[in-house]
Amino acid sequence: MKLIRFGEPGKEKTGVIINDVKYDTSAFGGDYDENFFESDGLNRLKAFLKENEGKLNVVPDSERLGAPTARPSKIVCIGLNYADHAKETNAALPSEPILFMKASTSFAGPNDDIIIPRNSEKTDWEVELSVVIGKKASYVEEAEAEQYIAGYALHNDVSERAFQLERNGTWDKGKGCDTFAPTGPYLATPDEIDDVNNLRLWLKVNGEMMQDGTTANLIFKIPFLISYVSQFMTLLPGDIISTGTPAGVGLGFTPPVFLKHGDVVELGIDGLGVSKQTVKAYEASKA
Amino acid sequence: MKLIRFGEPGKEKTGVIINDVKYDTSAFGGDYDENFFESDGLNRLKAFLKENEGKLNVVPDSERLGAPTARPSKIVCIGLNYADHAKETNAALPSEPILFMKASTSFAGPNDDIIIPRNSEKTDWEVELSVVIGKKASYVEEAEAEQYIAGYALHNDVSERAFQLERNGTWDKGKGCDTFAPTGPYLATPDEIDDVNNLRLWLKVNGEMMQDGTTANLIFKIPFLISYVSQFMTLLPGDIISTGTPAGVGLGFTPPVFLKHGDVVELGIDGLGVSKQTVKAYEASKA
Repeated sequence: MKLIRFGEPGKEKTGVIINDVKYDTSAFGGDYDENFFESDGLNRLKAFLKENEGKLNVVPDSERLGAPTARPSKIVCIGLNYADHAKETNAALPSEPILFMKASTSFAGPNDDIIIPRNSEKTDWEVELSVVIGKKASYVEEAEAEQYIAGYALHNDVSERAFQLERNGTWDKGKGCDTFAPTGPYLATPDEIDDVNNLRLWLKVNGEMMQDGTTANLIFKIPFLISYVSQFMTLLPGDIISTGTPAGVGLGFTPPVFLKHGDVVELGIDGLGVSKQTVKAYEASKA
Repeated sequence: MKLIRFGEPGKEKTGVIINDVKYDTSAFGGDYDENFFESDGLNRLKAFLKENEGKLNVVPDSERLGAPTARPSKIVCIGLNYADHAKETNAALPSEPILFMKASTSFAGPNDDIIIPRNSEKTDWEVELSVVIGKKASYVEEAEAEQYIAGYALHNDVSERAFQLERNGTWDKGKGCDTFAPTGPYLATPDEIDDVNNLRLWLKVNGEMMQDGTTANLIFKIPFLISYVSQFMTLLPGDIISTGTPAGVGLGFTPPVFLKHGDVVELGIDGLGVSKQTVKAYEASKA
């Protein structure tokens, strides 16, 4: 299945995509949230779709898309998980995963504007594959980790490099600004993806290809990451692990290149769709 | 007002403390959560208490206390915010606040057990004053920051030092383990506290005084912290800022001292009550 949420920010309704058509599933009841995943929601939704085949309303393309799941209890991110990205930022290859967290208030729809925070000069992009957790995960074995996956989604791990690296640690300061986690267009359940370790992921700024990688180059693979993170904290249904970005971020250029008001960012992952964000200065966003 | 939550983990009911007696306010409806604070809950609760004076059920002392507010969208912590603590950990005084985040799954009742995670050898204590946010805060001016405070609570910012400092950054890895944020016994609204910048805070391990400080020594004061954090992310009603710990943590001893199975931690802040946690090894906690 491919799950979507649509409508005004904070008032999203649930839906699905079937054969490229968006359908409203709000009659199913509830949001795609912790409770949904915890209560076997994916299987219940599947049954609902079968019962309601041909009866669901089509969602017009004019509707805004929200993030495909409700605001999670946490967004845990993996740092430097592609060798080429570690190299471009002059960082050593990690001996074990680097973890940081994005404030869940950064969670946004796939095509929402990216707002450059006040006093920012180094807002950067990072195309990433994110994993949505399907059930409570604590001390999970790597061999069993796939059972804990609800699905996958496209994520732009927007990052303010000065806040992240030059403003007196930790990375969290530059990762969780509002609008810094555009996610979606949809959540794809694992059966929708042939080989999650062989997906092209790319990102363009103003039409120019900046990142063009493949999940084949993930240093730490998804089952290992789920197991690893679950040693340090319990992952709740709906929580997100974002798996890191390949080379080509603005910080890696000489001289570095950062986002400015009016830029357009487009990104995509095979099987997970594409998203597009317009960059706005904070002041302009409030005008 | 002094707000409490009581009952089984995950099924807490709401209450208040009046003249040292605990009363059940579950007839008020809803939890002390984002929606409560956002919808002027504190004033509505005050009116409810007036209307129901003499009619509320007493909560027996045998009831477990939960954290005084519902699981927040985020717990933002300030690192090294007391000069004596920065010195004991051989860290430089911060030129601006250090931020990190505790996973909200670490949030726990004031007297719940602290579970030492698997493979931990350096679980440490940190008595802290935490601030609960009362309304949505984005780019707040320091002069107006007090309006955004719902209240204060006692917090033990339990920390695994090896996870935090020796396991390939960031600090988040050692801060958000389950049970690592015992909070309460109660939330005190600002009118309950004479001078938040002149409160003694202390922590004992097995009866021995380890930390004994005062909020007079906070490097960055609370209004500044609210303003500062709100430059990097929107704070939601119910979110928590934990303001840092004074000297006397286990890491600061020569040689360092860490918590072990069976230890008892007691802590308190003037006007914010005391809490007491028993330390358990992970395996024993599951037995």
